[in-house]
Amino acid sequence: MTLSPATDAFAEGLHAVLPNAAFREMEPRFLEEPRGRWRGTGGLLLAPGSTGEVAAIVQACAAACVPILPYGGGTGLVGGQVSDALDAPVILSLDRMNRVRSVDPAENAMTVEAGVILQTVQEAAEAVDRLFPLSIASQGSARIGGILATNAGGVNVLRYGNARDLCLGLEAVMPDGSVLHGLSPLRKNNTGYDLRHLLIGAEGTLGIITAATLKLLPRPARTGAAMMVLRDAAAALELLNLARDRIGEGVSAFELIGGMGLTFLAETMPEVRLPIGQPDWSVLIDLGLGDDGDPEEALMGLFEAAAEAELVTDGVIAQSEAQRADFWTVRESIPAANRRIGAIASHDISLPLSALPRFIDEGRAALAELGAFRINCFGHVGDGNLHYNVFPPPGDSRAAHADRAAEITRTIHDLVHAHGGSVSAEHGIGRFKVGDLERYGDPTKLAAMRAIKAALDPAGIFNPGAVLRL
Amino acid sequence: MTLSPATDAFAEGLHAVLPNAAFREMEPRFLEEPRGRWRGTGGLLLAPGSTGEVAAIVQACAAACVPILPYGGGTGLVGGQVSDALDAPVILSLDRMNRVRSVDPAENAMTVEAGVILQTVQEAAEAVDRLFPLSIASQGSARIGGILATNAGGVNVLRYGNARDLCLGLEAVMPDGSVLHGLSPLRKNNTGYDLRHLLIGAEGTLGIITAATLKLLPRPARTGAAMMVLRDAAAALELLNLARDRIGEGVSAFELIGGMGLTFLAETMPEVRLPIGQPDWSVLIDLGLGDDGDPEEALMGLFEAAAEAELVTDGVIAQSEAQRADFWTVRESIPAANRRIGAIASHDISLPLSALPRFIDEGRAALAELGAFRINCFGHVGDGNLHYNVFPPPGDSRAAHADRAAEITRTIHDLVHAHGGSVSAEHGIGRFKVGDLERYGDPTKLAAMRAIKAALDPAGIFNPGAVLRL
Repeated sequence: MTLSPATDAFAEGLHAVLPNAAFREMEPRFLEEPRGRWRGTGGLLLAPGSTGEVAAIVQACAAACVPILPYGGGTGLVGGQVSDALDAPVILSLDRMNRVRSVDPAENAMTVEAGVILQTVQEAAEAVDRLFPLSIASQGSARIGGILATNAGGVNVLRYGNARDLCLGLEAVMPDGSVLHGLSPLRKNNTGYDLRHLLIGAEGTLGIITAATLKLLPRPARTGAAMMVLRDAAAALELLNLARDRIGEGVSAFELIGGMGLTFLAETMPEVRLPIGQPDWSVLIDLGLGDDGDPEEALMGLFEAAAEAELVTDGVIAQSEAQRADFWTVRESIPAANRRIGAIASHDISLPLSALPRFIDEGRAALAELGAFRINCFGHVGDGNLHYNVFPPPGDSRAAHADRAAEITRTIHDLVHAHGGSVSAEHGIGRFKVGDLERYGDPTKLAAMRAIKAALDPAGIFNPGAVLRL
Repeated sequence: MTLSPATDAFAEGLHAVLPNAAFREMEPRFLEEPRGRWRGTGGLLLAPGSTGEVAAIVQACAAACVPILPYGGGTGLVGGQVSDALDAPVILSLDRMNRVRSVDPAENAMTVEAGVILQTVQEAAEAVDRLFPLSIASQGSARIGGILATNAGGVNVLRYGNARDLCLGLEAVMPDGSVLHGLSPLRKNNTGYDLRHLLIGAEGTLGIITAATLKLLPRPARTGAAMMVLRDAAAALELLNLARDRIGEGVSAFELIGGMGLTFLAETMPEVRLPIGQPDWSVLIDLGLGDDGDPEEALMGLFEAAAEAELVTDGVIAQSEAQRADFWTVRESIPAANRRIGAIASHDISLPLSALPRFIDEGRAALAELGAFRINCFGHVGDGNLHYNVFPPPGDSRAAHADRAAEITRTIHDLVHAHGGSVSAEHGIGRFKVGDLERYGDPTKLAAMRAIKAALDPAGIFNPGAVLRL
């Protein structure tokens, strides 16, 4: 079906069903994405204040075949929020749907609208002595609707799962404008196909999430952290298994830090203190234990056992919450340092844990054949998820090597795929990785995805060009 | 589209693509289901030995519009495995696909074929010092394919989640005979729609699961259990929250036991010892802690705090693994005792935790208006999941009240729905609850389900009449 632009006449018609507050002047940020790889060309910016208003907009768009780009916090890294291929789409910002509808600590659940910012959710949970564990770098601006639409991950997936694992129920507007009423704190509900899990991760192509019931967890009574210097990258996995054997679910995060990231930090952000210098490979381990637990003791015991097994050569255990925060500052500053250096190509990949060491070696060798590139490999190694970023040789600019980006990415993604890994671990497909999905995805899966898209959104008005090719 | 029977000519044609071992004489068990509510009328029994053979069967059925009933362990309680409305369907038993393809403790994953029995999975995990935590009464005969197709629950959902939460990847044959290759141990993989979660819980109506990669977990180093006598049903939730605040994720199971269940046990299975007599309401709490934990101490501390808060009036803590097993024998014998008494109507329901006490009171009152029925209410209260079974007055037979079953179920299900609960917490829809899904399900959800079914299985050959009406 042919898509139509949101004309002045179309906008005029919407005034009959929407309050003035839902109409907004276009702002540049709605036409941009953080990687700056492309820009939207304009469109009709709408900011509904309620689920009913979202439904009214979708009904109007469905009737007129006007495409809709749902817009959350705008922090997505794969271009799911911006299209340069659509003529005057509706850009549907959820930022006015920002109510926390309920917080119920006894139920361990809260219900929030799609426009609520992640940090607000975390704080609302903390206010009732509960934990909402999802934690990502952009939590100060990412909104729950987008977080669920992209199934965000972050640093606590190892213990608590991805965004989908923290969502109990969804409210969404479907492409025909009907409302899916699926908000619920139920832990068990086997009544038909799980549309919640279908919409989560569908990046706004099958439904527009308007609200969600989220799972709350007990706040760990006692927390702790350590940085340990690894014998080599392969030791990370042995250390992880040792930690989980000794400490069980108490391991909240297990982050690999490559030496290049620390070099970049020292170069671009000298104010960040490096507690263990600049070793080739280190990990940041974060624990959350119950009242009876002693994180310092647990980390000391782990370190001693790991040193005995020759997995680690040095380490430092946080002696205070402030020092724990310092450790996390190191980890969380690495992406900013990367940006200051300027990557030629960035990769959000995951691998079977057993394949990680070999992948790291083979990736280095394969890139060495392409040139003297620098690699910063870091990330959520406990989940097999690496951020694998490739930089120009020292002294060179990113721009000087921009023409090599596609070749580098192909090399890395081919290698990931050969090892049974994923070319999008936590960022999603968006528009940047549609070709990757076609290249590496299972053909049966792609056929089923296209059939589902056509069945639920026959006119193709929801986020056209994201996940599946226009 | 009109479905066709599996004629002799159809079976003859299959001999060209299947080995003789895939053809079986029909046995009565493939035409029965545990509740005895209806019987299949026959059909062509096939037992493929490989994914390729499943695909060959499905391709032949798709070409001839022959319906397929996938058959796992046959333990489902909602008639998902048997149809009396189909003329000579293919009954596809997965029992020959019973290979454990790989077990990888370092990866915390194992890959098994659909016909592997749950207990075999548990034992294979234990053999490498890992835990596969799913635990249900029928684990000695239920097979992984059926367990995933129905998203089974059981006693450890509180800590470890439902079957879907323990599955990392799937291999399945789609209704056109193509194979979905989704086996993977990856923890993070955001590459398109999550077909795994769509097939899990779809009860064989969208795809036939042929193999799965399952998540393994650390085996708790130290386990313990207690039975505690509750002040009343409402105290169960306060005790649960107290337990989770004190012990965190260490609480593996939290099972409510109603007094009627213990009365039935004493009456029908006097050999089962009742450690705390026959109180109105009690709970069985099971812990799994790390090396540093002390389950007995944790349970004693919990009991003291709960007694202080007047939540519990008595309790006993297992002093040995044998005593812990005895506690579980009480809990696990209740369904058998129920069967010996003979329920008029059984309900597998879930409720928001906060609604549970009110539901229990209101359910009792509503049933009292219908007659002097006895209620046995027990189950996985930590998940809000109750098995709520209704029995004839003492001395009466189930048959004498069989005509009241529909009225009783309607009363209970209406009440569950009014409290925001689910009329199928863990058993699924099958054929028994298709009407309930239509009555209580969200219309938008039902429309989306029908659209997805039509898109993926346009001829309607996969388990016709299950989940969605024929």
